[in-house]
Amino acid sequence: MPDAISFMCLIFFSHRFIPHAHMTMSTPHIFHAQVYYEDTDHSGVVYHANYLKFFERAREDIIGIDVLSDMWHNKGIGFAVYKTELKFHDGAVFGDLLEIRSRWEKQGEYRLVFFHEAWRPGKSAQPSVQPGSGCAWGLKKLLPFRT
Amino acid sequence: MPDAISFMCLIFFSHRFIPHAHMTMSTPHIFHAQVYYEDTDHSGVVYHANYLKFFERAREDIIGIDVLSDMWHNKGIGFAVYKTELKFHDGAVFGDLLEIRSRWEKQGEYRLVFFHEAWRPGKSAQPSVQPGSGCAWGLKKLLPFRT
Amino acid sequence: MPDAISFMCLIFFSHRFIPHAHMTMSTPHIFHAQVYYEDTDHSGVVYHANYLKFFERAREDIIGIDVLSDMWHNKGIGFAVYKTELKFHDGAVFGDLLEIRSRWEKQGEYRLVFFHEAWRPGKSAQPSVQPGSGCAWGLKKLLPFRT
Amino acid sequence: MPDAISFMCLIFFSHRFIPHAHMTMSTPHIFHAQVYYEDTDHSGVVYHANYLKFFERAREDIIGIDVLSDMWHNKGIGFAVYKTELKFHDGAVFGDLLEIRSRWEKQGEYRLVFFHEAWRPGKSAQPSVQPGSGCAWGLKKLLPFRT
Repeated sequence: MPDAISFMCLIFFSHRFIPHAHMTMSTPHIFHAQVYYEDTDHSGVVYHANYLKFFERAREDIIGIDVLSDMWHNKGIGFAVYKTELKFHDGAVFGDLLEIRSRWEKQGEYRLVFFHEAWRPGKSAQPSVQPGSGCAWGLKKLLPFRT
Repeated sequence: MPDAISFMCLIFFSHRFIPHAHMTMSTPHIFHAQVYYEDTDHSGVVYHANYLKFFERAREDIIGIDVLSDMWHNKGIGFAVYKTELKFHDGAVFGDLLEIRSRWEKQGEYRLVFFHEAWRPGKSAQPSVQPGSGCAWGLKKLLPFRT
Repeated sequence: MPDAISFMCLIFFSHRFIPHAHMTMSTPHIFHAQVYYEDTDHSGVVYHANYLKFFERAREDIIGIDVLSDMWHNKGIGFAVYKTELKFHDGAVFGDLLEIRSRWEKQGEYRLVFFHEAWRPGKSAQPSVQPGSGCAWGLKKLLPFRT
Repeated sequence: MPDAISFMCLIFFSHRFIPHAHMTMSTPHIFHAQVYYEDTDHSGVVYHANYLKFFERAREDIIGIDVLSDMWHNKGIGFAVYKTELKFHDGAVFGDLLEIRSRWEKQGEYRLVFFHEAWRPGKSAQPSVQPGSGCAWGLKKLLPFRT
């Protein structure tokens, strides 16, 4: 039984915002998301849309809340998801401490693609990449990028 | 077994925004909120914070989405809840079509107090007012009011 | 500027649950979703994950809340989204009354695919189908289907 | 300008679940809640109902997610909020790392009252207690308590 929820995020802001340490992708960025009551629905598992919240938190952790906050409050720049694909394998439950594994890659000068996976604790190995999933963040206010 | 979830909303914008037809309070304003998967949590009932969403929808229905939308988008005026009290009696479940009963009263020149109750379908009579509950909406941008 | 947010939902429960009147697909099923404060985020538009809520409401409207509620509460059967694709074109704002247009098709004996689009009010024509989007609902408790 | 959002939670499960280290209340329990896009609304600040999520996370942190998870999944016991009072002083914004300060007290054999405050980072001192706020968690499955 699969344990990962995969997610790919195609992101259209410059990689200059992305810490270089994580650009190699030899290992994914790890972010933990605790599953609370608020995340579940009456079927007993995490409501499907809420994984998008977890993945966004991971992206914000990668770029840095302070960087994003400064961009938003001082420069009026934010981001908007414009494409996403999700595949669900297993329902996370209340009490799970999900491990959000994120990788990304550069696509041209102005584009990055994010891949996220959510892993439940103590589950065995799964194929680490869920091909064909996709999500996009785009600048709400276009900027000339320099790399 | 009680079936109502009560809520009082103390609202600090002028009653000129409130349709006069509902000011008599001989009967409450009725708004229906359908309980979807998104509203429930893994305990099987509506997540407690989500009643605040239902009550806000009711207030927006009372004042008028078009009025609020115009105020926000054209005049930069919005509202913020600043005080609320909730008492929970019974858990609404997926499939319930909740009846949100709202009343309000004027308190001085610039203040209105809203009282909300959420009723599950097909339940018998309950005390219609839950005293001591309270919620407040305030103008985010102060205006001189005329009544 | 595009005005539609498309969504395809691959749904794995039998079409016997789907009203036949809508199977012809000559016209989509229409469901309206009002955009409230709760749906937006600080960027000023609807938070991306919340479209999934709107689309689920539409599916529940199509199948019937009473049918789904009876299935869940009396037979222990629910549904889980297991695949979805979203493309965002335009940000809906507070006050919008979104028109959710849904179509679906049969794929074999046990599978239906849902396609959703969210349209903002008063916007001009858009390509009605966003190819490549996908979402799946599956039975949480498998049943032998008969058509 | 006030910076705290206060909250009192009247909680009806036995204090045996509450770590004794925090019972003295000489200092509050501290839990941090990061404000993400998902928490805000189009007015630019945290949507009022979402503070209830932050406060619940704090309670779950106090009692222990593992304890609550075991109670739920193995013993069928959960908790429901049945009374709450909220007072809002200042709107938290995207990027804030809120400090949730929680205190609680025993009220008889079977009752605990929780008091929560949400503090924005880097703000000056505020009255630490907001009297009259209230919230209640109750056991969904009654148990004989021993202290």
